[in-house]
Amino acid sequence: MKTIIVGGVAGGMSAATRLRRLDETAEIIVFERGHYVSFANCGLPYYVGGVITDRSNLLLQTPESLASRFRLDVRVDHEVTAIDRAAKTVTVRRTQTGAETTETYDRLVLAAGATARTGITPAGLATRTLRTVDDVDHITALLAGVTGQASAVVIGAGFIGLEAVENLVHRGVHVTLVEFGSQVFGPFDAEMAAPIFDELLVRGVDVRLNTTVAAAADGGVELSDGSVVPADLVIDSVGVVPDTSLAALAGITIGASGGIAVDGSQQTNDPAIYAVGDGVEKIDAIDDSGILITMAGLANRHGRAAADSIAGEPGTASPALGTAILGIFGLTAAMVGWSEKRLVQRGRAHRVVHTHPASHATYYPGAETMSMKLLVDPATDAILGAQIVGGSGVDKRIDILATAMTGGLTASALTRLELAYAPQYSSAKDPINQLGYVADNLAAGTTRALQWHELAAARAAGAVLVDVRSAAEFQSGSIPGAINVPLDELRDRLAELPDAPLIVHCQVGQRGHTAARILSQIGLDVRNLDGGYRTWTAGVTSLGLMNVSAAKSERISA
Amino acid sequence: MKTIIVGGVAGGMSAATRLRRLDETAEIIVFERGHYVSFANCGLPYYVGGVITDRSNLLLQTPESLASRFRLDVRVDHEVTAIDRAAKTVTVRRTQTGAETTETYDRLVLAAGATARTGITPAGLATRTLRTVDDVDHITALLAGVTGQASAVVIGAGFIGLEAVENLVHRGVHVTLVEFGSQVFGPFDAEMAAPIFDELLVRGVDVRLNTTVAAAADGGVELSDGSVVPADLVIDSVGVVPDTSLAALAGITIGASGGIAVDGSQQTNDPAIYAVGDGVEKIDAIDDSGILITMAGLANRHGRAAADSIAGEPGTASPALGTAILGIFGLTAAMVGWSEKRLVQRGRAHRVVHTHPASHATYYPGAETMSMKLLVDPATDAILGAQIVGGSGVDKRIDILATAMTGGLTASALTRLELAYAPQYSSAKDPINQLGYVADNLAAGTTRALQWHELAAARAAGAVLVDVRSAAEFQSGSIPGAINVPLDELRDRLAELPDAPLIVHCQVGQRGHTAARILSQIGLDVRNLDGGYRTWTAGVTSLGLMNVSAAKSERISA
Repeated sequence: MKTIIVGGVAGGMSAATRLRRLDETAEIIVFERGHYVSFANCGLPYYVGGVITDRSNLLLQTPESLASRFRLDVRVDHEVTAIDRAAKTVTVRRTQTGAETTETYDRLVLAAGATARTGITPAGLATRTLRTVDDVDHITALLAGVTGQASAVVIGAGFIGLEAVENLVHRGVHVTLVEFGSQVFGPFDAEMAAPIFDELLVRGVDVRLNTTVAAAADGGVELSDGSVVPADLVIDSVGVVPDTSLAALAGITIGASGGIAVDGSQQTNDPAIYAVGDGVEKIDAIDDSGILITMAGLANRHGRAAADSIAGEPGTASPALGTAILGIFGLTAAMVGWSEKRLVQRGRAHRVVHTHPASHATYYPGAETMSMKLLVDPATDAILGAQIVGGSGVDKRIDILATAMTGGLTASALTRLELAYAPQYSSAKDPINQLGYVADNLAAGTTRALQWHELAAARAAGAVLVDVRSAAEFQSGSIPGAINVPLDELRDRLAELPDAPLIVHCQVGQRGHTAARILSQIGLDVRNLDGGYRTWTAGVTSLGLMNVSAAKSERISA
Repeated sequence: MKTIIVGGVAGGMSAATRLRRLDETAEIIVFERGHYVSFANCGLPYYVGGVITDRSNLLLQTPESLASRFRLDVRVDHEVTAIDRAAKTVTVRRTQTGAETTETYDRLVLAAGATARTGITPAGLATRTLRTVDDVDHITALLAGVTGQASAVVIGAGFIGLEAVENLVHRGVHVTLVEFGSQVFGPFDAEMAAPIFDELLVRGVDVRLNTTVAAAADGGVELSDGSVVPADLVIDSVGVVPDTSLAALAGITIGASGGIAVDGSQQTNDPAIYAVGDGVEKIDAIDDSGILITMAGLANRHGRAAADSIAGEPGTASPALGTAILGIFGLTAAMVGWSEKRLVQRGRAHRVVHTHPASHATYYPGAETMSMKLLVDPATDAILGAQIVGGSGVDKRIDILATAMTGGLTASALTRLELAYAPQYSSAKDPINQLGYVADNLAAGTTRALQWHELAAARAAGAVLVDVRSAAEFQSGSIPGAINVPLDELRDRLAELPDAPLIVHCQVGQRGHTAARILSQIGLDVRNLDGGYRTWTAGVTSLGLMNVSAAKSERISA
């Protein structure tokens, strides 16, 4: 059995090494059009930033090491340019000489990945992606050649763009971040991305939202608003699209999402041809639709599944949750499943919970606040998605939620999770348990909640906002027009409450819940502002309705 | 409805506050025999160590704060001494005056917790537990009064004992740790506890295994081996037993485990009486037997469940996994479910997996190695338990496994978990995925494994051990009698292998797996030493068969 693998990074190399371990006698050839295989894609920005100092650390394997350990025939600088499915051959071009040869296969694995999305950055502008070892060699050489402070424009505020920004700033480069959307970190809902936006400003990044790059200009680039910003370097991180040209040319079915369509064994419509990695359409775990997710973990898992299938074992690919994480200037932002805006876009019913717990028991030094958002199906109590942003412990909580989703646990079942507790690691009620309790109270009707973006309309309709925080908290910053009745005085000051629907709020939602319980039990019409003053502040910041530095200082003092 | 709650810390206070939120009109009285309610039990050792510096941080609530926020009637220094179930009254004694009164109830919640186990430390010896605010006041005052370096004896190397040791050392106290068992940290299997034992020695702790305290002696205590060790202070952390005296006296059913028997709503055999917390028998999630687990998280959850039931909502208590975590000298040790020794003791079939992954991508600075152990039901692939010890990221991985167990995921399903990956947080294949892959290979028969404690017998029966690490690794320390054939040379040196059953091993098990695949496919009888040289080293260290400092230096250099 002879297997040819097109592409020698995450998915392709996982398929190759797994296949060898399953079949010592298989003939396995890996063609990689680039000069490197099995390199650390996700580490590239950190090499630019000088966090990873040794370039050789980026190169996890070489053709030689793969030959000696896995008896793989790895050929770099070889591009597969055509597939003849009837003859079961591929045409291979040596990129350095242009010489073409033909190679037969029994099984073919397409793992060519994705390519930069075109049509967004102007054609005349010299940009560089941050996707290959060549890219980082180019960028680091360019920056080393700049006299004085270098400047860069980063286009696109997604994962790669933000990682590029962090590392360029870390290296002392002045950065303008140009984003055509109305928020940074588009995968997040806007109010959850607000802390990232604030942090970018604090670090001196010139963030331009609702903006695109128009043209090259003298000493920099001209933006869509006519301004010119300095740029020794322009990084294109507007995103990627699946590289399906080879597959499409050969008549392999491409899914509606634009990725190669595969079954649960990563098999394409041609049973001799498999596809894995960023070029492939995944199945969304929430609604079973075809989607694109470019994650190394999925590429590895699906590469392995393809190898299993080629070796005659059952394929084990499964739907994708799209769990993802970003580190930026000491903040961690992580998500799983669907965002609220996606749920709204798809017209799918959802319940929202915002919390702001501490990473561990607050009586033990070093606890950091995180902001969490949980999205729940109101009919089934299924978890549809989550977002978390904060300091330590964010990665742990998103992984717990991803595991809960895979295990089919409902939002209320999060209360039952028995998570490890000692005061330096968590709280006796872990933030995940707390999230479950809030969701459970909403599901049971124990509490009625109002979202930050619903507040204005509710007040316009006559509701009165009652801030149940302490007088000192109220004075240090409050929602305009709120009346202040501290929770601990609430039972004694009921007479002060107006005869109107009430919305109570505190700093994060917990005291508001207790206040709502007190008031609803005496027959009042009351809702608790979900996530309290913090979520409201982040929300209005994300709408540009509040001065950012005020929001920032509030967050710091809170 | 009048509810009396006996005990005002974790479980009792959770019941009280939840009940108030559900029922604004309920009469709720909390009797606490101590002087403090709702204090940070789990923080007490860290106050002794000076990590928590402000004593007021230990007192999370006061009777006054609970009255103003939750309208609770909290009476400290009040001990409930008897229950008259027929009359539905309790007898209450004021501990400071001895005066007794009687109080009626509609519902009674017993949350008196646990008391120190007696009969292990000698009666004549002045010891102190580390369970209350009074305890830490006593200990800190005593240590402050010592001239020169203070010395302490800690009896019992479980959670509290080890936390006490860490904090006493942190404070500059010389510590002798006396443990009657043959290993430290008894909840762990011996080979997993080896790094903790090593670390205690490195930190200068005088660890005495298989030893008990015999008597008070001049300037210290005499141990069972006749030696005398210095002790300005003796901390009794041999463990606790449920405080069931009040319940037993009133004819409440006590379970076989020694804890008060309750149903899923925390109701005892008397429908008017509930019980929660450390005094209560839990249901083991693995085999549904009654067990004792003393964890704040369970106490809180069960307190809430009791309140729900009293308020007429369905109770939500559920079986317990016993997830637990220990921080000691920068190491984290965490576990969930059953240990191997417990499985052996109960005669339950199990499969074992040891791995030693890095906390995150090794090409990104700061990755730390952890050691993981997974216990799997070979018939169903269900996860029966796990233990992890190492540096950063241990808490995350045990929580993922606890969530997977609650969600009913099998060991093989761990391969499917989509965990958040960026290089500073994880690897593209997270350690949890890797654990799943190893388990999956064992379940599928792709690999046959041998455990460290089975090696001697296998070799006695004629098997030959082949170390497939590099020559440099082999020379820096190896298992006596192993022959060295590096993996990358294995295919070319097959002729050197003896005609005998083979056991291959590498440093952590991964190269051993590849070697086993190569050899088994050419028809050889081969098994891979699970967890490699590291697990074997930890195992023989735990048996006292290897010099500890050699093991330690190996672990550091590896």
